[in-house]
Amino acid sequence: MRFVSIISVLPLLLIAACSLAPEAPSINWAIAVHGGAGTMSRDAPAAQLKAYEDAMTRALVLGKGMLADGASALDVCEAVMRSMEDNPMFNAGKGAVFNEQGKHELDASIMDGSTMRCGAVAGVRTVKHPISLARKVMADTRHVLLSGDGAEKFADVAGVERVENSYFDTEKRRRSLQRLLRERKRTGSLVPSDQSMDYGTVGCVVRDRDGRLAAATTTGGMTGKKWGRIGDSPIIGAGNYADEYAAVSCTGTGEEFIRHSIARSVTARMAHGGETLQQACSAVIHDVLKQGDGGLIAVDRDGNIATPFNSSGMYRAMADSRGRFEVAIFPIER
Amino acid sequence: MRFVSIISVLPLLLIAACSLAPEAPSINWAIAVHGGAGTMSRDAPAAQLKAYEDAMTRALVLGKGMLADGASALDVCEAVMRSMEDNPMFNAGKGAVFNEQGKHELDASIMDGSTMRCGAVAGVRTVKHPISLARKVMADTRHVLLSGDGAEKFADVAGVERVENSYFDTEKRRRSLQRLLRERKRTGSLVPSDQSMDYGTVGCVVRDRDGRLAAATTTGGMTGKKWGRIGDSPIIGAGNYADEYAAVSCTGTGEEFIRHSIARSVTARMAHGGETLQQACSAVIHDVLKQGDGGLIAVDRDGNIATPFNSSGMYRAMADSRGRFEVAIFPIER
Repeated sequence: MRFVSIISVLPLLLIAACSLAPEAPSINWAIAVHGGAGTMSRDAPAAQLKAYEDAMTRALVLGKGMLADGASALDVCEAVMRSMEDNPMFNAGKGAVFNEQGKHELDASIMDGSTMRCGAVAGVRTVKHPISLARKVMADTRHVLLSGDGAEKFADVAGVERVENSYFDTEKRRRSLQRLLRERKRTGSLVPSDQSMDYGTVGCVVRDRDGRLAAATTTGGMTGKKWGRIGDSPIIGAGNYADEYAAVSCTGTGEEFIRHSIARSVTARMAHGGETLQQACSAVIHDVLKQGDGGLIAVDRDGNIATPFNSSGMYRAMADSRGRFEVAIFPIER
Repeated sequence: MRFVSIISVLPLLLIAACSLAPEAPSINWAIAVHGGAGTMSRDAPAAQLKAYEDAMTRALVLGKGMLADGASALDVCEAVMRSMEDNPMFNAGKGAVFNEQGKHELDASIMDGSTMRCGAVAGVRTVKHPISLARKVMADTRHVLLSGDGAEKFADVAGVERVENSYFDTEKRRRSLQRLLRERKRTGSLVPSDQSMDYGTVGCVVRDRDGRLAAATTTGGMTGKKWGRIGDSPIIGAGNYADEYAAVSCTGTGEEFIRHSIARSVTARMAHGGETLQQACSAVIHDVLKQGDGGLIAVDRDGNIATPFNSSGMYRAMADSRGRFEVAIFPIER
């Protein structure tokens, strides 16, 4: 009898032994944030680079604290985006670039990978926090994408704060527009030679402690844009996406991200091609897109983080429940 | 020597024999067209069903003739869409549904799978042929998506014909709006109980004799829409997509097609999951989407055609260079 009972508990003993092995604990939560990709230079003034690192750190600390307190992926994404929309250093909310008419038109989107619900707004001019309006579109309507004046009417219905368009003004961005318009006049080219004018789309991707994934992105678009141009940020599947495999937020030359459905391609490669998060992200950034197009941040359901880019730099920061905490601008040699 | 030379030509003889076998000739060109999916009834007046079949037939004959003459996939897509935009039976161009304010706002997109170039317009009110404006966005700008007033300014630059918004009016669509507004007032619900009011998004997918794939889609959106709502038709990857694997045009509840990046998912499943066109199309319509969401038309690089839908019907027509010519509305038992 005693012999039999030892045999019968052997599998349990084996399982117990395995769980005692010194493996790394699984990741409880993970977060990544970006503040735009582009042709940053290591020769930029140290104080300027430091200011961006500090801004990325503050956004990350906010999200990390909420996640440690058990906040949902969606709440963390919205809160981090709001804080970055308020920061004039970034091209989103206060500090957004000017369009050709000297106005601001903002785009944003948010997606909850655990429910596949999503919301987005394009071309809004008077909404202080576009990401919150995108979330209201997701939560309060049966729609995904609202645009222009109509989206602002919905902001009133939804109780989302509106401001004068001039609230978004900053001197730095105004000088960028003036430089671009002079260049357009001189060369006739619509394409700015200095892409640094557009830096600063912001994004956040999160895996919360309940395993839910969410992604959010906000942008002011391109300096001097016209004709109601909409980029990839408010396009679900292009600049932003979340499902059960991964949450993805992109930044760069929006048209290229739309053309190749970049955010959705990451999760499709994982779902249908069996690729890991790192493989899928690396493929879309380095094989599908062209050098200089931009980058993305992504997190998968296991809390792995990827932040590939093919531009000279990308403002980015990432943290997880195992103590990872990194802030970077340029490629890191490992 | 003679013996050796017979051995050496044997492989060539085998290849010649194989090519003489009575196999079906490969498909030179193929085309599919849709005129919307929804809750059509087999009990509808026979004359009404016949009118839609005739309209689909005319669109198909136009495209088929151009393809037999060697036209490019892109030219065929644009020409077929223009003819359907002119037909008041469809919810695109003349005959488009009314928004809540009693106006028309049109969306369209076009994509060339052989170059990955694409163009789209959203919320245009005065452009007679939205598909031609989308093509101009693709050909003449570095952008993918233009919207609203800005897109109309670009129409003037690009030389695309503009009309009064009332040009798109039809009595049938006006009655639909009035019915919807009465129902909204009575029930408080924003969701129409009769989805038939929105039928008629149009789309075309083509494989031309040079193997190039292209897709195009135009819609007036949803009856009574408000807040600048944009559906899936102008969203590259959602309602329309073309690459080297397939060309896809969708119709149905736009938000669901955006949420799951349906058009892009078809080609992603083929590229990364090794699925056939039929498998990929069937999976997204029957496994990913919900019953009643709608359908799609697709063609792959071998000229295979798929036209799955999960609604009660979808106006559709398809032809290829091997003599296939089919027009249908309801599911076909094979």
